[in-house]
Amino acid sequence: MIDTGQDVRERPRADPYGISAALLDDGIRPLAGFDAWLTGRQRAQRHRITRIPFAAMDGWSFEPGTGNLVHHSGRFFSVEGLDVHTDRRWAGHWRQPIIVQPEVGVLGILVKRFGGVPHLLMQAKMEPGNINGVQLSPTVQATRSNYTGVHGGRGVPYLNHFLGADRGRVIADVLQSEQAAWYLHKRNRNMIVEVTGPVEEHEDFRWLTLGQIRQLLHRDHLVNMDTRTVLACLPAPDGPLGAAPPRDRFGALVRQSMAGGFHPVTPTAELLSWLTDVRTRRQLVQRRVPLNDTAGHGWHRDDDGIAHRDGRYFTVIAVHVEAGNREVRSWSQPLIAPVDQGVVALIVKPIGGVLHALVQARVDAGAVNVAELAATVHCQPGNYRDVPAEARPAYLDEVLTSDPARIRYDVVHTEEGGRFYHARNRYLVVEAGPDFDGTPGDHHRWVSLRQLSRLARHYNYLNVELRSLLAGVHTLQ
Amino acid sequence: MIDTGQDVRERPRADPYGISAALLDDGIRPLAGFDAWLTGRQRAQRHRITRIPFAAMDGWSFEPGTGNLVHHSGRFFSVEGLDVHTDRRWAGHWRQPIIVQPEVGVLGILVKRFGGVPHLLMQAKMEPGNINGVQLSPTVQATRSNYTGVHGGRGVPYLNHFLGADRGRVIADVLQSEQAAWYLHKRNRNMIVEVTGPVEEHEDFRWLTLGQIRQLLHRDHLVNMDTRTVLACLPAPDGPLGAAPPRDRFGALVRQSMAGGFHPVTPTAELLSWLTDVRTRRQLVQRRVPLNDTAGHGWHRDDDGIAHRDGRYFTVIAVHVEAGNREVRSWSQPLIAPVDQGVVALIVKPIGGVLHALVQARVDAGAVNVAELAATVHCQPGNYRDVPAEARPAYLDEVLTSDPARIRYDVVHTEEGGRFYHARNRYLVVEAGPDFDGTPGDHHRWVSLRQLSRLARHYNYLNVELRSLLAGVHTLQ
Repeated sequence: MIDTGQDVRERPRADPYGISAALLDDGIRPLAGFDAWLTGRQRAQRHRITRIPFAAMDGWSFEPGTGNLVHHSGRFFSVEGLDVHTDRRWAGHWRQPIIVQPEVGVLGILVKRFGGVPHLLMQAKMEPGNINGVQLSPTVQATRSNYTGVHGGRGVPYLNHFLGADRGRVIADVLQSEQAAWYLHKRNRNMIVEVTGPVEEHEDFRWLTLGQIRQLLHRDHLVNMDTRTVLACLPAPDGPLGAAPPRDRFGALVRQSMAGGFHPVTPTAELLSWLTDVRTRRQLVQRRVPLNDTAGHGWHRDDDGIAHRDGRYFTVIAVHVEAGNREVRSWSQPLIAPVDQGVVALIVKPIGGVLHALVQARVDAGAVNVAELAATVHCQPGNYRDVPAEARPAYLDEVLTSDPARIRYDVVHTEEGGRFYHARNRYLVVEAGPDFDGTPGDHHRWVSLRQLSRLARHYNYLNVELRSLLAGVHTLQ
Repeated sequence: MIDTGQDVRERPRADPYGISAALLDDGIRPLAGFDAWLTGRQRAQRHRITRIPFAAMDGWSFEPGTGNLVHHSGRFFSVEGLDVHTDRRWAGHWRQPIIVQPEVGVLGILVKRFGGVPHLLMQAKMEPGNINGVQLSPTVQATRSNYTGVHGGRGVPYLNHFLGADRGRVIADVLQSEQAAWYLHKRNRNMIVEVTGPVEEHEDFRWLTLGQIRQLLHRDHLVNMDTRTVLACLPAPDGPLGAAPPRDRFGALVRQSMAGGFHPVTPTAELLSWLTDVRTRRQLVQRRVPLNDTAGHGWHRDDDGIAHRDGRYFTVIAVHVEAGNREVRSWSQPLIAPVDQGVVALIVKPIGGVLHALVQARVDAGAVNVAELAATVHCQPGNYRDVPAEARPAYLDEVLTSDPARIRYDVVHTEEGGRFYHARNRYLVVEAGPDFDGTPGDHHRWVSLRQLSRLARHYNYLNVELRSLLAGVHTLQ
């Protein structure tokens, strides 16, 4: 079976997004002016984040009885307890605090062509948990109350292009999961919409080509998680090759793996069957419990935080935010602060001349359906300091000791700054060396980049960190 | 965009499943002998189902405090309470009993070619809630404890062909949801596996062609739910036409709509975007509550049942089962007994020469992700006797008053007899008349049969009743 994942008659004659990807300094807003603009926005969005005791939070409190951390309005989110039973031999049963936020938000990037070339409208936006404060965000990050009429969509610029009567042509529109280690069943709507009419460029917003954004994806802590996940939903190009030549041998491999027209090592039917198998064989029984009831499992609350007695995983903290230009000028809120920086690494390797990526089926506490596809390695190494050797994450040591000459991407990004405080992951793409054992174990499979892009059209296949990294891989053409 | 949903190079020269579908009386087991075999199996699987008071159940009891109905082993399933908040204007908040069964079972049909023609190994199997007791079931219906080694797979014939070292070639392998009005987040693994080696035909099992099973799908209460949902996962044929001519004009339309090679009225990207929109705009907040706490919402428990004060929806009952040849010869268990027969109807209509089906995005209490695609009409009409006119299900009256000459399929099937007692749905396929207003409202969209088959490869798109009906539609070629 040849998996190009498309119908030959769908193949367009040209790929405007490929042209956009090739344009760096000649977008309508040159990249050279980007830093000055960003610095200006940072100055305009002056803010101060202060860690405070829980008791000093405005509107948030521990609910009597359960100890759940809730907002008095019942809105936003809550921090509750989760009891997790898995079939993992090492530490298979635990309880932990978890963020519960059943509502679905919209993350949307608006696209418009200038001179025939698609440009993406990006936003400079402050979130309290962001490293560097202001990061490059999608055009729209809207909560449910923004778009169901509670606020009538007022106060969220451009939202009408995604949900209203002025809605543009849909390029991508799919629910996607978010960090299942810290969120229970969380999902957001990822949208890319292209419009043709006039669009005003407000001061916090800037038109960038795909190529410019891909350049910026090589800087630490600049392109936020919401942008990365939405970019990963951009359909793989159906044109065979891009508008510009690939940057090098590896770039050509990336482009070919995205374009399809070959036999992937794991046919899609087999890949889906393997994931189904993991989802049925492995066990994940989730039960919400009062946050108070995590105390017996090592989670202790004092005035300033809820932390694990082993000094691992994360701490629930409270912050006070004084912001310059947000609709609410100051507020307080809880955040989850991971103890350690994480590693999210994809091992890639040409097999039969086609670049493949090694993905795992990963089970996380708050997953909606047991497992999703994740990067080859995905962990906080600090949590595994003294676990038995057989429980150490597969391929972690290979990645941490890999020859720097084989590292194709190495950027530290921040996770969602509205819920997590300085949550850093080191995103790596490592090309396997000649001595790498390419036979995957039960938990891993080789897939093409096109297969990943095709699965990103559907909910519940690629986890958010893999989608982040996929956006990074796409920069390597 | 032309949506054939396949790559032209994948198109095989012949479709053995099309040949199997065309074979009626000339399978290796002629259909003429089927009734005698089934009667024999019914005789061999003598059983008696008796409704009993809850207190007379063996191993089941109401848990102190919560009143949840549980098995003392903690296994099987439990009946608990669910609190549901939706944005529906009419009766948008309610509580109800719900079955909680987090484990995933395997429903598998084994295929083997005889004389080059695929035959499916079907099972005559009794379930306590079945109408007619014994129905035609998949080769395997296995629970998690069957396949994770608790029993080492012993006692489940043929399971090794699905999960073991003797596993065959995977034709379909996907998690699918089940009745979300009565189950919380329930899903089962649907598998079709083709083997080449010798397979023994045990006395409760019989090789049938696809054509023979499709004939039997026209009888009431014969082909069980598990068979119907697995059959719906059979990939749409890639060959342009079947082995035999279609039975009539309508059969030709069905076949063409399954084969693809045309522009569907709703392109797939637009269809997925619409479903994503429903999943984000509509609200479904689920909270598990003690079964006792449904009492304030009209659910009253007496010695023999838990019923709603309005005499609607369903009753939780208890039965005692004396079986002839099951591994356990007698047991008792709770079942959910719907008050009324349901209607599951698909309105179909040629549009631009291609048959399209009108599907809705339906929100159910126990859904995993707010909404799935469902038949045009899907309800128990009795529950809507005196609701306001605007809350009456769309198209229900059209379906119930449709010209019999336009009804293409009209069969009453039983839902899963292991959990539901005499749960009957009338499955209808109705071809729209010339005066039918084909402009769908917000809750409906026109799709091709090929689009439905393609989506059935993934979890969480087609609900179980639509999959049942799709298996029925496939019989109409």
